[in-house]
Amino acid sequence: MTAPPLRLGVDLGGTNARAALVDQAGALVASCKLQHDERTPLAVARTVAAAVRQVAGQAGVAVAGLGGAGVGVAGQCLGATGMVLNAPNLGWRDVPLGDLLRAELGLPVRVVNDLSAAAWGERAFGAARGVDDAVLVFVGSGVGAGLILGGRLHEGGSGVAGELGHVKVTPRGAPPRRCGCGEWGCLEAYAGGMNLAARVREDLAEGRAGAVLAAAGGDPGRVSASAVEAAYLGGDGYARELWAETGELLGTAMANLCTVLNPTRLVLGGGVLLGCPNLMRISRAHLGDRTLRAARRGLSVEAAGLGDDAGVVGAALLGAEAAVAHDR
Amino acid sequence: MTAPPLRLGVDLGGTNARAALVDQAGALVASCKLQHDERTPLAVARTVAAAVRQVAGQAGVAVAGLGGAGVGVAGQCLGATGMVLNAPNLGWRDVPLGDLLRAELGLPVRVVNDLSAAAWGERAFGAARGVDDAVLVFVGSGVGAGLILGGRLHEGGSGVAGELGHVKVTPRGAPPRRCGCGEWGCLEAYAGGMNLAARVREDLAEGRAGAVLAAAGGDPGRVSASAVEAAYLGGDGYARELWAETGELLGTAMANLCTVLNPTRLVLGGGVLLGCPNLMRISRAHLGDRTLRAARRGLSVEAAGLGDDAGVVGAALLGAEAAVAHDR
Repeated sequence: MTAPPLRLGVDLGGTNARAALVDQAGALVASCKLQHDERTPLAVARTVAAAVRQVAGQAGVAVAGLGGAGVGVAGQCLGATGMVLNAPNLGWRDVPLGDLLRAELGLPVRVVNDLSAAAWGERAFGAARGVDDAVLVFVGSGVGAGLILGGRLHEGGSGVAGELGHVKVTPRGAPPRRCGCGEWGCLEAYAGGMNLAARVREDLAEGRAGAVLAAAGGDPGRVSASAVEAAYLGGDGYARELWAETGELLGTAMANLCTVLNPTRLVLGGGVLLGCPNLMRISRAHLGDRTLRAARRGLSVEAAGLGDDAGVVGAALLGAEAAVAHDR
Repeated sequence: MTAPPLRLGVDLGGTNARAALVDQAGALVASCKLQHDERTPLAVARTVAAAVRQVAGQAGVAVAGLGGAGVGVAGQCLGATGMVLNAPNLGWRDVPLGDLLRAELGLPVRVVNDLSAAAWGERAFGAARGVDDAVLVFVGSGVGAGLILGGRLHEGGSGVAGELGHVKVTPRGAPPRRCGCGEWGCLEAYAGGMNLAARVREDLAEGRAGAVLAAAGGDPGRVSASAVEAAYLGGDGYARELWAETGELLGTAMANLCTVLNPTRLVLGGGVLLGCPNLMRISRAHLGDRTLRAARRGLSVEAAGLGDDAGVVGAALLGAEAAVAHDR
């Protein structure tokens, strides 16, 4: 009797590479996370290969027998060619990651944006299981989306679809804030965890946000969305204003996405949204108010079901599909 | 020798029903437009059938030999069932148009949103020919979009995708305007031709917009986007302000759509955009500034190529596909 095939998924972040073997029910039978020593493309590819060898060893299978690998990367990827156009957390531009990993692993490799991978994982085994038109919105240190449209992953004409963090949303009556991408007024400049923390620190310098600082233990370096949430729970006026604005921007952007794409499932994930129930509540209220009525009918909203595993599970599935295509 | 097959398309508006026979090169070999006597669903279905008989007669073919019909409707349609959920110009809600037309014509019928049909037509024979990821944005009396994603028409989970006119875009420092859909702050409330004219008339009542009135021959009932454009060309300050705001809202909404969907072609159509070169120029400047750089690379912007024929051509193609599916 042959064991059911295991699929190899990799989640590649700025600090770690995580490899996992996923069974046909979406369960992780082996998982290994290794920190990058350095972030040159070749060094990172070798770290990925080391993590892959470890999970293969754990599961008692040969790497060569895995058929293919899927790799989710926090960045803009050209799926068809395996190029990473821009991965700010790794400091990469135009890196041929697919080729590097193929050489290291001896396997066909599919490179995909991490949120596209996560959306694909949620659709297979999580909060969008079996849904043909599903949108994943992720609000963590950054903001982005993964799009399942008509039962297929939509990666766009050049592979950068889903960049919800960079829609322009300048709130009324204020000059736009600068985003990490270099542009102005991006949603991520307001709602991404990194930018939220930076904004609170700016406001601290102007003598505001004291309750958030207290919630962060008095250390400006530990200010975070969670600290804003804690201050909000304590009734702090600054935190209330910040969540009112942030929730309106997030909820409106999600509403506009649903109005245009008419998904039947919206999956919400990421540490900022899932870790801040009041921001979630305010965002969802605006989402409900501002989605076109006809698109709201038939839309259900769910919290992401697979947590940090969504990306590696989705990548594994996409990698296996690429391997099948490669064999034909 | 058999003549190449002709495809039957219908464009159903609030005032007229237009039927056309389209050949394999996308050319109209027969076309007939009939005005609705009344707008009850049955009366409209009979008007459509009369127009269809006329074009069949013009081309010397039998209606029964046409194989199938595609019908584009300005409204929210459930393509799979042929239901029209909401067609404000016809005053319809939940009308089983597909069933009514099948009974009148004796043919399989595919019902589709008019801008989805137009996008499909532009993709086959117009400004998005052969492009797999193309977005059509239409600014006429209303505002909407048609989405071709991964080579397929994206109609959404309940058939109402593409409602760009109802994304919420309240400009800075002003209360939201009410849209014809009953919601507040919709793009169409600012940029749709009907609402633009209504807004100018409101401003006339407050003693502004005199130059636009003059351009409309002094008749408030003839105020239109074209009259604003004419006043703009004459250097009128009111018209400049109105185009600055309208162009920013339109350009930002189009930019956000391109940032999220990453199409390789954006097709711009509709009388307001195509008839007002200065509004087009301002909108395109904001589109260029606000689309995420990675999505802008590889995006080309074109004016619609098929004019008023796009909808009837696209509907004809979609109807023929439905007929093939029906025969299987």
